[in-house]
Amino acid sequence: MELLKERIRRDGKVKGTDVLKVDSFLNHQMDVELFAEIGKEFKRRFAGCEINKILTIEASGIGIACVVAQYFHCPVIFAKKTQTKNIAGEVYTSKVESFTHGRVYDIIVAKEFLGPGDKVLLIDDFLANGAALEGLAQLVKDAGAELVGGGIVIEKAFQPGGDRLRAKGLRIEALARVQSMNEETGVTFADD
Amino acid sequence: MELLKERIRRDGKVKGTDVLKVDSFLNHQMDVELFAEIGKEFKRRFAGCEINKILTIEASGIGIACVVAQYFHCPVIFAKKTQTKNIAGEVYTSKVESFTHGRVYDIIVAKEFLGPGDKVLLIDDFLANGAALEGLAQLVKDAGAELVGGGIVIEKAFQPGGDRLRAKGLRIEALARVQSMNEETGVTFADD
Repeated sequence: MELLKERIRRDGKVKGTDVLKVDSFLNHQMDVELFAEIGKEFKRRFAGCEINKILTIEASGIGIACVVAQYFHCPVIFAKKTQTKNIAGEVYTSKVESFTHGRVYDIIVAKEFLGPGDKVLLIDDFLANGAALEGLAQLVKDAGAELVGGGIVIEKAFQPGGDRLRAKGLRIEALARVQSMNEETGVTFADD
Repeated sequence: MELLKERIRRDGKVKGTDVLKVDSFLNHQMDVELFAEIGKEFKRRFAGCEINKILTIEASGIGIACVVAQYFHCPVIFAKKTQTKNIAGEVYTSKVESFTHGRVYDIIVAKEFLGPGDKVLLIDDFLANGAALEGLAQLVKDAGAELVGGGIVIEKAFQPGGDRLRAKGLRIEALARVQSMNEETGVTFADD
């Protein structure tokens, strides 16, 4: 998606060879007009898939998922990272290792919102090691729902998550695939 | 907002006299078409205010804020609840006491995204004790930005936050103001 890649080139900040900060438009300050273009592109790529639920994970996936969902005319569910007393009843749960935060946490979704008959699209801002996406995929599997695929805004294609999950048969559409990064030369995309 | 009140009557679940669960449409599963109507209503109420930033707090405010922001044609910033190593540089910080989770946490916003000249609308799903909204208002003040007001989806009008913050001069627009709740009789709204 050229518009997104241009934005990453212009406003993304590379730290070392593996940190790409896009918090001016994607995951701290959020450009909702860019998100609308992202939504149209995911709708184009997943056209005809009869998606009726979008599943994401707090926190930075939520805004993107909600704007994207407007193009699919379906609700969003966000997996919560810890069990709070406001979620009563039964939940599906999975474990996710966060490399950013250096810990393992539980993610949960209330069982009443996901089940057989649902066709689910996963949405997240980044795919790197794939832990979050894998945890979400496990929740969908446990619910007996159909996993249509994963829509990712930025894939760090030099990290193993995307390859591993595609090898398992998961359809992943990443709108910008970063091949390499360098503080001097910036970002190189996989398909440039 | 009648559409919202109808939805709360239909799908909200009252527990005791102070817990209102709306996680089937507002803050776990999210009805983005309802969020669009909420966005139109906030735009109507804050018309002419020249809002150029919407500030919310993770996690359940983010989805609402992003859909609402489409009607204001401005970006959203979400305050993060803990400092992660992905936020470098200077931040504004404030403390919020969570009654839901029984703890006090820091919220932060990167200084580069908020400053003098910004006209800020706060958006959140609930207003009860007002701690989150007050923390967000403090961040706006510290940034030297102008605080236009707070847009709240559901206010628990029987809890003290709304009255206290209005008495301080904050303009708060709440789309549904719950006067009382009861497991047998359900929800009574303040303006019914």
